[in-house]
Amino acid sequence: VVFSDSFDKAMAAFIIANGAAAMGSGVTMFFTFWGLNLLRQDRAVPVRKTPIERMFGWMMPRGAEKAVLSKMNMAGMGTAMIKGIMKKKNVLSLPELIAAAREAGVRLVACNMTMDLMGIKREELIDGVEEGGVAAYLDRAGAANVNLFIG
Amino acid sequence: VVFSDSFDKAMAAFIIANGAAAMGSGVTMFFTFWGLNLLRQDRAVPVRKTPIERMFGWMMPRGAEKAVLSKMNMAGMGTAMIKGIMKKKNVLSLPELIAAAREAGVRLVACNMTMDLMGIKREELIDGVEEGGVAAYLDRAGAANVNLFIG
Amino acid sequence: VVFSDSFDKAMAAFIIANGAAAMGSGVTMFFTFWGLNLLRQDRAVPVRKTPIERMFGWMMPRGAEKAVLSKMNMAGMGTAMIKGIMKKKNVLSLPELIAAAREAGVRLVACNMTMDLMGIKREELIDGVEEGGVAAYLDRAGAANVNLFIG
Repeated sequence: VVFSDSFDKAMAAFIIANGAAAMGSGVTMFFTFWGLNLLRQDRAVPVRKTPIERMFGWMMPRGAEKAVLSKMNMAGMGTAMIKGIMKKKNVLSLPELIAAAREAGVRLVACNMTMDLMGIKREELIDGVEEGGVAAYLDRAGAANVNLFIG
Repeated sequence: VVFSDSFDKAMAAFIIANGAAAMGSGVTMFFTFWGLNLLRQDRAVPVRKTPIERMFGWMMPRGAEKAVLSKMNMAGMGTAMIKGIMKKKNVLSLPELIAAAREAGVRLVACNMTMDLMGIKREELIDGVEEGGVAAYLDRAGAANVNLFIG
Repeated sequence: VVFSDSFDKAMAAFIIANGAAAMGSGVTMFFTFWGLNLLRQDRAVPVRKTPIERMFGWMMPRGAEKAVLSKMNMAGMGTAMIKGIMKKKNVLSLPELIAAAREAGVRLVACNMTMDLMGIKREELIDGVEEGGVAAYLDRAGAANVNLFIG
């Protein structure tokens, strides 16, 4: 369960997911609440929204590129510093980790209740994302070996 | 393990717990640290406390009704907005989710070490709550299929 | 996975780990991102660092003694209050919990990718810490009964 949309927690989630996929495990990531923001496209998609949905959409980070550190963000400076170091050390960026996850067959599931509450539409999400609810999550979690809540 | 008392994380915890109970699983939620605040009654209960315990009790949110978002709370406005949307979409409120959990047989366990440290007394908690320690938690966790730390 | 370096979450992590070890389970704690700070020595260790690594090292809490509450820290006052109560109630302090974990055979693994990114050197960590990557974590997690992400 990816509950958080912070840069550091998203990095941890995708590094673990991609590592598990590389070791041959089936991996499903369930994005709920703030975590759903990581799956948004970084451009505005023209969709019909209520005023309050539009406001939510505007206030929350649009996509993984916009994610910031949960601590020491310092108005973006901390996040920029970490991204700079990652680039220098040839660590994959968050969007690259997401692309790698998709290529490795990691299932990305968007929580449909969150989509409904926050007014996020299917067309606003990146390609290759499924929709699912808590029952779908629990089915998969019950069969999994390792379950983590990244909040 | 419910470690957080934020509104969003508590919602996630109870939606997962109630979903699992609805699918026939035995569910135990262990409330520790801030999470314990979710099990407090929303009224002041007359109990004997030290001055520091009284201060803690006063500073921490008294019950699920008082829980606020971990992000974008904006002095309560964000939380109120989400609650408004939830009501409109007929999503159960947090107190309703807790009541539903109790009815579905979800076991709610209050961490007795936290109760001792924070000076929260049994009489201050809602009905239907058990007390337990880390050993009780681990016994249950070891036998469970899915374990999450919601922090 | 210990992702957080906050006092309260670290307490929860070590109380669970030590409890499990006391009940005869093999326990491995994997410290990543901010969590790595909990394993730093509380003194400055003379090591060669780039200026940016030096700055990171200086800005992040150096060791468990410096960890503060994730909530209600109030410029250190909240953390000091909790520590005072813990002492009075004879609860082990965080450094004592870490020492107890080591004595009980809990494996403390420092994420080597975090060490590389943050510029934390082996000599700066407390004794008895191993280094490992995501593959080492996943190997251990796959074989474990209970997995938690404390973030």
